[in-house]
Amino acid sequence: MLTLAEKLEKGLVTLDKVEVRATLEDNHHADVGSTIADFAAKEAQQLLALFSLNDRAELFAYLPPYMQADVAALMSRTKLAALFSRMDADERADLYNDLDESHRAMILPGLAQAEREDLRRLASYPEGSAGAIMTSDYATIKAHWLVSRAIKQLRLEAPDKETIYQTYVIDPQRKLLGTVSLRELILASPDALIADIMRTDVVSVHVDESQEHAAEQIRHYDLLAMPVTDEQDSLVGIITYDDAMDAVVEEATEDAQKSASVGVLEETVDRVSLRELYRKRIFWLILLVFGAMFSGAGIAHYEDTISTHVALVFFLPLLIGSGGNAGSQAAALMVRALATGEVDKSDWAKLFSREMLVGAALGGTMAIAVFSLAVFRGGFEVGLIVAISMIVIVLASSLIGLSLPFILNKFKMDPATASGPLVATIADVAGVLIYFGLASSILTL
Amino acid sequence: MLTLAEKLEKGLVTLDKVEVRATLEDNHHADVGSTIADFAAKEAQQLLALFSLNDRAELFAYLPPYMQADVAALMSRTKLAALFSRMDADERADLYNDLDESHRAMILPGLAQAEREDLRRLASYPEGSAGAIMTSDYATIKAHWLVSRAIKQLRLEAPDKETIYQTYVIDPQRKLLGTVSLRELILASPDALIADIMRTDVVSVHVDESQEHAAEQIRHYDLLAMPVTDEQDSLVGIITYDDAMDAVVEEATEDAQKSASVGVLEETVDRVSLRELYRKRIFWLILLVFGAMFSGAGIAHYEDTISTHVALVFFLPLLIGSGGNAGSQAAALMVRALATGEVDKSDWAKLFSREMLVGAALGGTMAIAVFSLAVFRGGFEVGLIVAISMIVIVLASSLIGLSLPFILNKFKMDPATASGPLVATIADVAGVLIYFGLASSILTL
Repeated sequence: MLTLAEKLEKGLVTLDKVEVRATLEDNHHADVGSTIADFAAKEAQQLLALFSLNDRAELFAYLPPYMQADVAALMSRTKLAALFSRMDADERADLYNDLDESHRAMILPGLAQAEREDLRRLASYPEGSAGAIMTSDYATIKAHWLVSRAIKQLRLEAPDKETIYQTYVIDPQRKLLGTVSLRELILASPDALIADIMRTDVVSVHVDESQEHAAEQIRHYDLLAMPVTDEQDSLVGIITYDDAMDAVVEEATEDAQKSASVGVLEETVDRVSLRELYRKRIFWLILLVFGAMFSGAGIAHYEDTISTHVALVFFLPLLIGSGGNAGSQAAALMVRALATGEVDKSDWAKLFSREMLVGAALGGTMAIAVFSLAVFRGGFEVGLIVAISMIVIVLASSLIGLSLPFILNKFKMDPATASGPLVATIADVAGVLIYFGLASSILTL
Repeated sequence: MLTLAEKLEKGLVTLDKVEVRATLEDNHHADVGSTIADFAAKEAQQLLALFSLNDRAELFAYLPPYMQADVAALMSRTKLAALFSRMDADERADLYNDLDESHRAMILPGLAQAEREDLRRLASYPEGSAGAIMTSDYATIKAHWLVSRAIKQLRLEAPDKETIYQTYVIDPQRKLLGTVSLRELILASPDALIADIMRTDVVSVHVDESQEHAAEQIRHYDLLAMPVTDEQDSLVGIITYDDAMDAVVEEATEDAQKSASVGVLEETVDRVSLRELYRKRIFWLILLVFGAMFSGAGIAHYEDTISTHVALVFFLPLLIGSGGNAGSQAAALMVRALATGEVDKSDWAKLFSREMLVGAALGGTMAIAVFSLAVFRGGFEVGLIVAISMIVIVLASSLIGLSLPFILNKFKMDPATASGPLVATIADVAGVLIYFGLASSILTL
């Protein structure tokens, strides 16, 4: 059977409207969007033009951000303005931010006054903040309303709101008084007062908080949507569960990239330009090269010991590699635990003392594993040096790996910067100094 | 201000019911649950006993799994059975799986026949499968019903269902015919037929699929809940967005641990026993020690070259470390892209050729960075050897790092096993052979 993309590719030859639409119609918008995303911007724009305005706005939302901007740049002013007014408020604001100045200026006149203000406001929040992923398409009701009136109002507003399953009760200053779910509304008596049935223990997030924090709160409280408030405690938007889930995945991807000393990529790894991929990788690699030069300097310092006992060199990669591995383990565990909130900075001392025991046990086991080989290769003295070095290096590297994320956190840097390569490089330097330092003092005895 | 836990600790001295409840009552169940989770099982059980059965069942659900089993083991048969019958079906099944045989046998007689069968069925799906995170508390309606009847039915069932916002239309054999959202129901005319308004392009998942896949589908299609079906295409459960979000976070944590060669921890890193932490870390460390012995063997092979040119050793950690770093970068990018579905195995060739260009550029830049230092340290020949080695090692390691996740995937292993430490160890061996191989052939010319 042909895949959607293959069928489409065939239809594309003539860009036959009927045929392409028939092929795509049976599929979920998310899949059609992904398929369109596989084409270049020019073809994607032609494909989108085959759909009704409403469908087009929905499909458009499934294109990756960088592609949205490219496709939008190809559209006429009227088409783009029409698309804009049908998009969800939060997605519209994201796209607006990705457009260049001339396209922004092109769009604004085509929008209604209220939309224009909403767009400017939503687009003003910095990337990564709760404000940047919130939407203004939420439903509000008043505390003095009856349940019947609230349901009637929701029915009227339903088509334009991102969710009607969670409604927000506000006062005339838009201060958030409480929330009511649609489930609670349809279970309540139609004559009940909203004030009597609303929940007042509302979990909300400030508009300047990080989206990572907001998403974590949504997950912790199992929320469908979380209200976002400003300095005056006024309701300014909501973050829905689906955007929170996207934020969680995005954060995990960023952390995975940082954990390997790669800068955060704006596009997926198969689409990002080679230049960008090079740029995001070379920064740390070069920095680590200079870090690794300290290992070389350490070795130079012990040149005499090494030239008289070349057998020591056999165990160098093994020892410094083991330190790097154990340190990377400890760092990765801490980075993730800090990211999910399982531990915080107050836990460092406890975790450090635990790591002393575990690190010593790990180093001890590994020392046993290499001891006899080292004796066989270089005699009892070398065996002893390698075994003791292994314990000290693994323990020291584990403690460095565990502490580095906390240190970065203290200096308001992302703990994820304590990547495997960074920890390994530090462990290399420590390992060289420990190993040859120990060797030169034991062998000169 | 005192934290919840501190206040509680004070109240705890007398276990004063009124006081503790007053302190906790104003807080969200999720927070009260987290607070209780900070105590030992014995105190947690006493605290839970202060709440009504319904509250207790809700609070209990917020305790971490390993703690639930400990607390349950302390309860009397009747109390445990009562708690069981109030818990959500999916959480009940998870707890059942965590209990030992004697406690399981204790509970079953206390449950109604239907509950017992439901529990046995839900508990039978293997961990990690869609079946293991689905719930049987979903609402179903019939295609021949009118909208008004469906709403009436939902209102009746609302208190017992995990969600009523998404309803499933089934035939007498429980075959899934379509879905209707509550939004669509309240927007439709009360006299409309369900068959006429239901969506038939339903995205569902098979009960044996991985929960990772199910969660990714829920995210991709922005679903509130996804139906789960069996071999006969019959509806057997639903997975809700909140469980999907938990699954996404859990998978990301597992991948983060694997990326640093740590086995998957069952508990959080601050609670897991030291023995378990040791066990989950030592496996890969020892395996990598044996891997690293190949580096030692490689060095032994070039012993003569090394003893006549000790300056070569200065650059060893730098070169093999750089290879490990570049390889780790490539591996981490691929592991994450495979996990999120951004790339699949068919993309390998394209990505490999891209990596050849990027890897060569990275290696070239790093070679320039070290060349003059190497000339200064060991003369022009050594400078040349180090620079050429850098290019070859970084390129080779990048290609190994990129390919390893695909190779593991091909052999049905988790690509995340291609961890930084594993890649670094392989890169070490490759680096030693490339560096000294090149050195001995150039220097003996």
